[in-house]
Amino acid sequence: MKGLISIGSLGRDDLEALVRRSIEFRSRLDGHEPDGNELAGRAVANLFFEPSTRTRLSFHLAARRLGAIVLPYDPATSSSAKGESLRDTILTVAAVGADVMVVRHSRNGVPEEIAGWSDRPVVNAGDGTNEHPTQALLDAVTIKKRFGRLDGLRMAIVGDIAHSRVANSLMKAMPTLGVDLTLVGPSNWLPADTTAPTTDAIDDVLAGVDVLYLLRVQTERGGEITERFVSEFGIDRSRAGRLRGEAVVMHPGPINRGVEISEEVADGPRSLILEQVANGVPSRMAVLEAILVPG
Amino acid sequence: MKGLISIGSLGRDDLEALVRRSIEFRSRLDGHEPDGNELAGRAVANLFFEPSTRTRLSFHLAARRLGAIVLPYDPATSSSAKGESLRDTILTVAAVGADVMVVRHSRNGVPEEIAGWSDRPVVNAGDGTNEHPTQALLDAVTIKKRFGRLDGLRMAIVGDIAHSRVANSLMKAMPTLGVDLTLVGPSNWLPADTTAPTTDAIDDVLAGVDVLYLLRVQTERGGEITERFVSEFGIDRSRAGRLRGEAVVMHPGPINRGVEISEEVADGPRSLILEQVANGVPSRMAVLEAILVPG
Amino acid sequence: MKGLISIGSLGRDDLEALVRRSIEFRSRLDGHEPDGNELAGRAVANLFFEPSTRTRLSFHLAARRLGAIVLPYDPATSSSAKGESLRDTILTVAAVGADVMVVRHSRNGVPEEIAGWSDRPVVNAGDGTNEHPTQALLDAVTIKKRFGRLDGLRMAIVGDIAHSRVANSLMKAMPTLGVDLTLVGPSNWLPADTTAPTTDAIDDVLAGVDVLYLLRVQTERGGEITERFVSEFGIDRSRAGRLRGEAVVMHPGPINRGVEISEEVADGPRSLILEQVANGVPSRMAVLEAILVPG
Repeated sequence: MKGLISIGSLGRDDLEALVRRSIEFRSRLDGHEPDGNELAGRAVANLFFEPSTRTRLSFHLAARRLGAIVLPYDPATSSSAKGESLRDTILTVAAVGADVMVVRHSRNGVPEEIAGWSDRPVVNAGDGTNEHPTQALLDAVTIKKRFGRLDGLRMAIVGDIAHSRVANSLMKAMPTLGVDLTLVGPSNWLPADTTAPTTDAIDDVLAGVDVLYLLRVQTERGGEITERFVSEFGIDRSRAGRLRGEAVVMHPGPINRGVEISEEVADGPRSLILEQVANGVPSRMAVLEAILVPG
Repeated sequence: MKGLISIGSLGRDDLEALVRRSIEFRSRLDGHEPDGNELAGRAVANLFFEPSTRTRLSFHLAARRLGAIVLPYDPATSSSAKGESLRDTILTVAAVGADVMVVRHSRNGVPEEIAGWSDRPVVNAGDGTNEHPTQALLDAVTIKKRFGRLDGLRMAIVGDIAHSRVANSLMKAMPTLGVDLTLVGPSNWLPADTTAPTTDAIDDVLAGVDVLYLLRVQTERGGEITERFVSEFGIDRSRAGRLRGEAVVMHPGPINRGVEISEEVADGPRSLILEQVANGVPSRMAVLEAILVPG
Repeated sequence: MKGLISIGSLGRDDLEALVRRSIEFRSRLDGHEPDGNELAGRAVANLFFEPSTRTRLSFHLAARRLGAIVLPYDPATSSSAKGESLRDTILTVAAVGADVMVVRHSRNGVPEEIAGWSDRPVVNAGDGTNEHPTQALLDAVTIKKRFGRLDGLRMAIVGDIAHSRVANSLMKAMPTLGVDLTLVGPSNWLPADTTAPTTDAIDDVLAGVDVLYLLRVQTERGGEITERFVSEFGIDRSRAGRLRGEAVVMHPGPINRGVEISEEVADGPRSLILEQVANGVPSRMAVLEAILVPG
């Protein structure tokens, strides 16, 4: 794998192989098996130009658990403060010896741009409203672990889809894996160009899905939290009660409690939110390994 | 050990065992023996929500010298910047795979709160004006190394006791270890509810103590530096000269030179201030080991 | 080696030995040989009080590739925020267990001052307008790798020499290594006290040098970018075309594209800028080893 900019670049076989490998790594972690040395001697640059807790920490831990060195980078204390261009910063990080660059940026397309500047593979850790491919992978891992399969499942993505890089990656990965998608939200938050069915009537959808995937309202990217959104689309105990017996609730985090999801549902038995987080490290281990340890 | 929120949770045997183990680790460090692998595969999350040099660095080094991975966390670049609640941040850090969380926070009680949110052990690295248990441990280690014993020694704590989490932890640990305590300070800085003798007459106390323990005036927590405080309670060469021959001066740092302690005393032969810092790493090694490597 | 404050403290044999060792380490890196354990158990404190990308990352990677622990330090989240003096911070870092301190500071002389405060060796990673010794070393390494020798080569340093710590270190190291130096710049940017020939006529110099060494205009240290500077001293394709066949262009970075160097020259075949960066890690490995592993 030459890097991972868009989850759409992976075909079904590649995606399924990553899901399988992620689940193997998850077992290694759960079994407290000794860490490996798959990436001994390799340096992973964690280039986060935007705040992050779960993604940054899980790439860090994924790299370390495979024996890699993590290069710390903080834009606030770097030479960008001296006016260095992003391209020169990237060329420098490559020349220092980064074997792979994990990039989060608030602007769409930056990871792809970066991948064109140097010969080092780039992993997109979230760019603007564009994509978040490792999130889609860990979500697939989470669903597969719960249901034993992906093919034939029905998933609804609910909320601020227009501003969501997570939704964009899910809309590419899930159909590839055989998951049937419905998009639910206020009409101005639904994507214009999608082949998936869309609706603003969440209550028509609840009883028919296996996975209810909620999104954070991205206030920092133009989304606005309104009372009307909460009452029409927020998932509380009453709406969750209309889900089928085995159905689960997912959310990429960070969650806005009381907005898109109520306290009870977030912490309730259907919630896989923390399972998603727990699958972040093994999924990113699988991605780093696929890139740095050619099969 | 299930974590370390309050030093008061430890009985004499437990405390003495930690002191002994800390001294063993100190010898290992002094002898430049190879680092161990007691915590191989474990991840220590260093969650500092307040500035720190010595405590943060020494937990980092303690974890690394035992073979653990340290999860870096900076509130400024984390999802708290996106409005994530502290509880959700903590649940996320736990789900990512932290085996123990080291927490410093400006608000009293946060480490205890956090310990109730997840099943991961928590080490209190200082919370508001409440407690700083590993400081009390490293102080006990420092005294034990100097005097060969703790039982029967006499210690005076001087200064801004009311705002001091260090004093609170010392007031629990030292009596348990057989150290006789006196509290010295302006009456409004003395705790209301203590069984230890209190006085505002430092000059009556100097000749009778083995350990003179000074505190930084906590300006960020309501303490105020006044000329009167400096003249009535500041330890300069003249006051230090009235200490007994073997008596020592301690301070948890950072020190305000010229306020609670003069240059000469801080850098003088009675000062154990840097010894205290040097015992920070081995003491935190002992705590992390006691928590993560069940005896 | 007792530390590295000024490159002028090293005689020719020492400098040449460091260059040779750096080139060996570079081969180890290029050959993807396993990392060593030369510094196992040692702690390197990376004390950057000024922004940096390449120097900070390369010291980090150098230390880790030799098996050392890196102590993270960020002035923004340290006790300097509580008013701790620099001297007390340094004594604390030493007492915590740093085996060597790598120091960058905006004020001239701080690394030397620090070296006087504790017994730990100090590496100057750039102080104000004073010196940047490891930059001069990696530059020597870069030239030696390209030309096979240093002795007898001719180098011109061009630009804001007065504000440049890099120039100061080069003016000490290069003559020691047998490189013939000329200083080129507007007269107010030329040093008053130098034995090297100086000129403000860059076009007279181009045809005679092997190495054209450009400097960033240090706007944060009093340098000012003017159109006149760009037209009289900026290196564009036309000026670069007048260099001899084998001549190279170097720059310590970060570069101001379109100021001291044009896009085409920065990214052109004569540019060794990224080679310089690539030699940063092995050169700093050589320095850390020379200090911590006495021959």
